[in-house]
Amino acid sequence: MSAQRVAVLGAGSWGTTFAKVLADAGRDVMLWARRSEVADAINERAENPGYLPGITLPERLRSTVDAAEALDGAEVVVLGVPSQNLRENLARWRELLPPGVTLVSLSKGVELGTLKRISEVVREVAEVPEDQVAVVSGPNLAMEIAVRQPTATVIACPDHDRAVQLQRACATGYFRPYTITDVVGCELGGACKNVIALACGIAVGLGFGTNTAASLITRGLAETSRLGAALGADPLTFAGLAGLGDLVATCSSPLSRNRSFGERLGRGETLAQAQEAAHGQVAEGVKSCSSIRELATRNGVEMPITEAVQRLCDGEIEPREMVAELLGRKQKPERS
Amino acid sequence: MSAQRVAVLGAGSWGTTFAKVLADAGRDVMLWARRSEVADAINERAENPGYLPGITLPERLRSTVDAAEALDGAEVVVLGVPSQNLRENLARWRELLPPGVTLVSLSKGVELGTLKRISEVVREVAEVPEDQVAVVSGPNLAMEIAVRQPTATVIACPDHDRAVQLQRACATGYFRPYTITDVVGCELGGACKNVIALACGIAVGLGFGTNTAASLITRGLAETSRLGAALGADPLTFAGLAGLGDLVATCSSPLSRNRSFGERLGRGETLAQAQEAAHGQVAEGVKSCSSIRELATRNGVEMPITEAVQRLCDGEIEPREMVAELLGRKQKPERS
Repeated sequence: MSAQRVAVLGAGSWGTTFAKVLADAGRDVMLWARRSEVADAINERAENPGYLPGITLPERLRSTVDAAEALDGAEVVVLGVPSQNLRENLARWRELLPPGVTLVSLSKGVELGTLKRISEVVREVAEVPEDQVAVVSGPNLAMEIAVRQPTATVIACPDHDRAVQLQRACATGYFRPYTITDVVGCELGGACKNVIALACGIAVGLGFGTNTAASLITRGLAETSRLGAALGADPLTFAGLAGLGDLVATCSSPLSRNRSFGERLGRGETLAQAQEAAHGQVAEGVKSCSSIRELATRNGVEMPITEAVQRLCDGEIEPREMVAELLGRKQKPERS
Repeated sequence: MSAQRVAVLGAGSWGTTFAKVLADAGRDVMLWARRSEVADAINERAENPGYLPGITLPERLRSTVDAAEALDGAEVVVLGVPSQNLRENLARWRELLPPGVTLVSLSKGVELGTLKRISEVVREVAEVPEDQVAVVSGPNLAMEIAVRQPTATVIACPDHDRAVQLQRACATGYFRPYTITDVVGCELGGACKNVIALACGIAVGLGFGTNTAASLITRGLAETSRLGAALGADPLTFAGLAGLGDLVATCSSPLSRNRSFGERLGRGETLAQAQEAAHGQVAEGVKSCSSIRELATRNGVEMPITEAVQRLCDGEIEPREMVAELLGRKQKPERS
């Protein structure tokens, strides 16, 4: 049996795209938007022009600014708000959540300050057991999915039956979900990939090619995997869609903000210059590298690439020194 | 202790490049070339113009057309001839090999017909125990290494001490070798990557983007890993430089022959047209997909991407059907 009525909270590009996938898969979807002009555009013109311009949304996808209306009767609730705003938003919605509902996090990463994974924040704020919380991750650039380009994804939930229910709820001809029980691995893969994409961008900005980028991707995934193992993840998760898949998509897409930001740093721009070029936004990897490194230090895990990115962001080393430092380390076995 | 005197047999682009790395690392290298004009160019002008035009080779790198001269006193012998010619070449050199010498294969893949891995061919023809045979693999596009772009690599040998000796022999500021004992995993990663690169090219030729390519890379590595496990490899090897690293480099480089060949097939060209555009050469992945599929069938392993590529090469399905077929399969867990 699969859920029929789904609420998606947050009408950004990934929230809207995932709502579209669910509707294309035959679900009745209610999408909560913060701003009424977004909800109106979706209901009246079947479009979210700010985030998915030119994409016609399916009829089964309706929108509202009233969270109570969106959540009424929902069997599945998808959380699509930015990770750093999730705690306060979810606190407001808590009383409206149907009992026993599956909560699905589209955000990956770690909450700044608390260093908690997003699913931990969800459990804590919604006061639900971990079996009720799932995470979606994979090589999932929203715009490509919105135009129905084929992709695979992973749905992680400690409760395998719930994961299968979600898998059925969102499978379409272009979107192929796999199930997994390792939520920790999924979320850490998503959190660490931005830092590695930044490192790849720096190498590209320095003029290095495919080997260097592929080496940084592989060794970056190895250090992510070490951190994951220390925090209870299954190392094999990182070889899958939420690890390697998401990382390769992020590092190879010209649309990746972290990679572009890194390229500017690699070409010798300062953090402030790169930020200005990114319309005032600091790349996610710049913000999260210190949290990830703190998690690593607390757990006694060596993460040389993350450490090098942080030192570069802090102005302690130059891009070229960073690469030399990574390659000049003590020779060792690939796994240790 | 590290080896000082190294013979490299085969002066193609990767053989010459690896010889250059060894010389840059301080070894005395004798490079065997089949043709005297190549050996002369290396000795007189420090260049191999056919394979590495414009690259100045180090003084410690000398060349000869006399295999006996190359092998005399060598502590390490590196095999850089094409994999499908290795058996007959090695049979001729067998009597010249110094006793106890470490044999290093630069070829990855499977011998057509016998379905043997290249290191198995080496052991069989050279009549040496497996401890004496090592394999080098990783994200190692020769031209980038020849211009000293930073990269990591893996040296696999069942005898860890030999692997460490080789690691010391070739480590330079731009070439960072890691050691591993899993030769089977290393070789299968190298054999299967060409088929996956072909599949990625087909998707790109169809107009698909980053998610699709990243999904094929991830699921392609998953099926490679399943085959590896059945043949005694460590699944974690595929998450490393010889699996993921080599695969990502091959799938993302515009220089990859397999990817370009696949792109032509994806755009609707026939095998014959794609072959003509590739100066008469059939891509490696086209040749090896049937061997790999046969290995998989013998061992009861499901390899849907390899199977789809083979069916497409055999003219049984169209590119668009291939992608639809891969995404429309029965829903399942990520690992099973």
